[in-house]
Amino acid sequence: MKRRLSHVDPKGRARMVNVEAKAVTARHAVAEGRITMSRAAFDLVRANRAAKGDVLAVAELAGVTGAKRTPELIPLAHPLPLEHVAVSARLDPALPGVRIRAEARVEAKTGVEMEALTACAVALLAVYDMVKAADRGMEIGEIRLVEKAGGRSGPWKRKT
Amino acid sequence: MKRRLSHVDPKGRARMVNVEAKAVTARHAVAEGRITMSRAAFDLVRANRAAKGDVLAVAELAGVTGAKRTPELIPLAHPLPLEHVAVSARLDPALPGVRIRAEARVEAKTGVEMEALTACAVALLAVYDMVKAADRGMEIGEIRLVEKAGGRSGPWKRKT
Amino acid sequence: MKRRLSHVDPKGRARMVNVEAKAVTARHAVAEGRITMSRAAFDLVRANRAAKGDVLAVAELAGVTGAKRTPELIPLAHPLPLEHVAVSARLDPALPGVRIRAEARVEAKTGVEMEALTACAVALLAVYDMVKAADRGMEIGEIRLVEKAGGRSGPWKRKT
Amino acid sequence: MKRRLSHVDPKGRARMVNVEAKAVTARHAVAEGRITMSRAAFDLVRANRAAKGDVLAVAELAGVTGAKRTPELIPLAHPLPLEHVAVSARLDPALPGVRIRAEARVEAKTGVEMEALTACAVALLAVYDMVKAADRGMEIGEIRLVEKAGGRSGPWKRKT
Amino acid sequence: MKRRLSHVDPKGRARMVNVEAKAVTARHAVAEGRITMSRAAFDLVRANRAAKGDVLAVAELAGVTGAKRTPELIPLAHPLPLEHVAVSARLDPALPGVRIRAEARVEAKTGVEMEALTACAVALLAVYDMVKAADRGMEIGEIRLVEKAGGRSGPWKRKT
Amino acid sequence: MKRRLSHVDPKGRARMVNVEAKAVTARHAVAEGRITMSRAAFDLVRANRAAKGDVLAVAELAGVTGAKRTPELIPLAHPLPLEHVAVSARLDPALPGVRIRAEARVEAKTGVEMEALTACAVALLAVYDMVKAADRGMEIGEIRLVEKAGGRSGPWKRKT
Repeated sequence: MKRRLSHVDPKGRARMVNVEAKAVTARHAVAEGRITMSRAAFDLVRANRAAKGDVLAVAELAGVTGAKRTPELIPLAHPLPLEHVAVSARLDPALPGVRIRAEARVEAKTGVEMEALTACAVALLAVYDMVKAADRGMEIGEIRLVEKAGGRSGPWKRKT
Repeated sequence: MKRRLSHVDPKGRARMVNVEAKAVTARHAVAEGRITMSRAAFDLVRANRAAKGDVLAVAELAGVTGAKRTPELIPLAHPLPLEHVAVSARLDPALPGVRIRAEARVEAKTGVEMEALTACAVALLAVYDMVKAADRGMEIGEIRLVEKAGGRSGPWKRKT
Repeated sequence: MKRRLSHVDPKGRARMVNVEAKAVTARHAVAEGRITMSRAAFDLVRANRAAKGDVLAVAELAGVTGAKRTPELIPLAHPLPLEHVAVSARLDPALPGVRIRAEARVEAKTGVEMEALTACAVALLAVYDMVKAADRGMEIGEIRLVEKAGGRSGPWKRKT
Repeated sequence: MKRRLSHVDPKGRARMVNVEAKAVTARHAVAEGRITMSRAAFDLVRANRAAKGDVLAVAELAGVTGAKRTPELIPLAHPLPLEHVAVSARLDPALPGVRIRAEARVEAKTGVEMEALTACAVALLAVYDMVKAADRGMEIGEIRLVEKAGGRSGPWKRKT
Repeated sequence: MKRRLSHVDPKGRARMVNVEAKAVTARHAVAEGRITMSRAAFDLVRANRAAKGDVLAVAELAGVTGAKRTPELIPLAHPLPLEHVAVSARLDPALPGVRIRAEARVEAKTGVEMEALTACAVALLAVYDMVKAADRGMEIGEIRLVEKAGGRSGPWKRKT
Repeated sequence: MKRRLSHVDPKGRARMVNVEAKAVTARHAVAEGRITMSRAAFDLVRANRAAKGDVLAVAELAGVTGAKRTPELIPLAHPLPLEHVAVSARLDPALPGVRIRAEARVEAKTGVEMEALTACAVALLAVYDMVKAADRGMEIGEIRLVEKAGGRSGPWKRKT
């Protein structure tokens, strides 16, 4: 078992991980998350969806652009030449609310989990922003990694 | 009841809300969130805390700097001259994991809910980043507004 | 007549204009621009519009977020707490192509012409990006101020 | 002929193009644009040029730094490790006004047309900003790709 | 005498200062700095100056744009609507090298010392960047506040 | 001997260096700098260090995140996929003040001196920000390259 966090040096100081000696491999990561809202707020989003769908379209776009800001937001993250970011938003009446799924891809020395997770978080915050006048009590949650591949540690999949 | 989302025009198109005619008032908002992790990962964070506490310090700082990026991350958010952002991270053995609480303050024409929520989300993503090598299955959740004040709609408090 | 550019000091050096002593007034500016493309490319954009309209929606959003970046893009521009940015994109079969109109509003010591013009330019570049695989020869043009108001110089309107 | 825009998925949703499987090749792109102004404004810029030339120097620099912001401005653009950006501004008495030419180079999986076009647009906006007090009616136009090379689609040149 | 740093809470944690209750006043700050280089490098910069002066012009512009990035660079700094930033670079044969002087102005609840100091630091780094191929041993130093005014603490001047 | 600055074209215009034809090699650079303060201010920083050490921790983190902003701050710098940035801050009672040492690593076509120097400058500015209420007269200096390696010019070390 690990005795120490990868991002902390022997003295306990936070540090960026040195990826210099790692191999360049194709890497991808998928993350998900959701925002739960009142039935009334959900109905407004669904009505918008029926018309033009801009709330979900704006959320998806915010996720893509948010993923590109990952190294600026996460202090110890590495800048990466992202090759693909795909974010999809869908209504889930059972919540009721919106579910986000984000995928990031790159050929690099380090993984893109943070980019996929950041895309989800930013997309969900964008939904909150657009719907907040209808419901201030919305909750963002279940932001988590679904799967990743590439790099020395190999593929990882969430157990459901 | 509202018939239309504030951020959507009559044609269903997303838009920035025009705050030109609103009054400048003192506004603040408090938000919270948490990340749940394995017991082993939690023990590593706690051990780091006992030493220097840098994982939590980095998360707090990421939250503050993240709040300042809100108008860049959230497409329809207004740029605001933030007067205070306070982010606190604490270990919660019952999760086990880390809880984040963020507060934002400004004297402006529009509120700072998005700044407080963004601070939480970014702080939690920063924790994920630093601890991910110990546990990829961590989950970020319960990101929500706790209270807000200022502006025409008046004070709002989350019912527990 | 002016003998010297406002952004150049007596020695010919570029400088930011000092707006310290100016009055805070409500200001707004409207700008426009267009991108001309082949008929085939236009038909693809129109077909997309008929379905979901995302090309135009993305362009509008890029314009709004671009306006917020104005002080980072334009070296001598002042940072402003924008209170409203509205960008609309519409198909113009007569070009054929897309026309953009952008409006910016703020209560500040200096005007928002650059924000409105930047919104147009960025929205048009976003259209180019999304359509370029169908037509590399597209041309962006007619980016210009339509009207402005507020500040000492008073209202200004483009003569058609 | 293409049936669908490259940046739109089968459901009509905007998306980033996945360049994962593309080959890394040397790529470059050249773009141009111009801003037309009144004779009086042109004379001020020319006089500045005779002295120190800072208006044109600032425009060139704004173009270079603007090119580096392309992935932040254009929502679906990929971040690229630009290897060269060259922007040149020259007075054209026949307009009268300023012509910008920008070139971008990179060894990557995707092209740099957007970087060259963004450099032109930002350089022209910077000229507008510095000269606007002398002429609010200036018009930015003829922003277009001149040539590109690299990648599967091979070289492309604008027909004059 | 102060017992505790303003940016540290009673538990020793770094925090942003809450300026909510401070008065909005006109504030300005002046800072300076210098870079020392070899005689040969200095002669190259001076020759460039004689021609077009672009090294110094680029440094000045980098200082202005750098000042606008202060709240992104300095974690606990407040975003401010800067009203003026002036940066001047001059050759000093006695160093030999370049001296930078920067001034920032704003009407706000907190001061602009960091903006003036950041302008100096970034301008000096830009000189280093442009001259480094001629002399890697250059040294940046004497970055310090010269004077400040505005706010409760009143005017401050450096004793020479 | 060089006759012309690398970042200036034959006409004296500033330009980005074209690194297209350079080889991709492992590169690193180390830089240092210091801030000198009053004994009283130093004692406050030392007392904070004894407790939690957040002033130094914030400075280190600001250095890491500042290094990632180098291509945005330095107009003619190239964007680089940084693989490692390490910043360490230590108290030096002999100054009295704080010394910063920063290292940057990348496998790329151009070097990382500017990233290491920018990390130092930003870390030192962050210290100034946090300590300025206790001493406005602090001075930042001795920012310089300590060593570099990689690239055609080979290793370089500062002579002490």
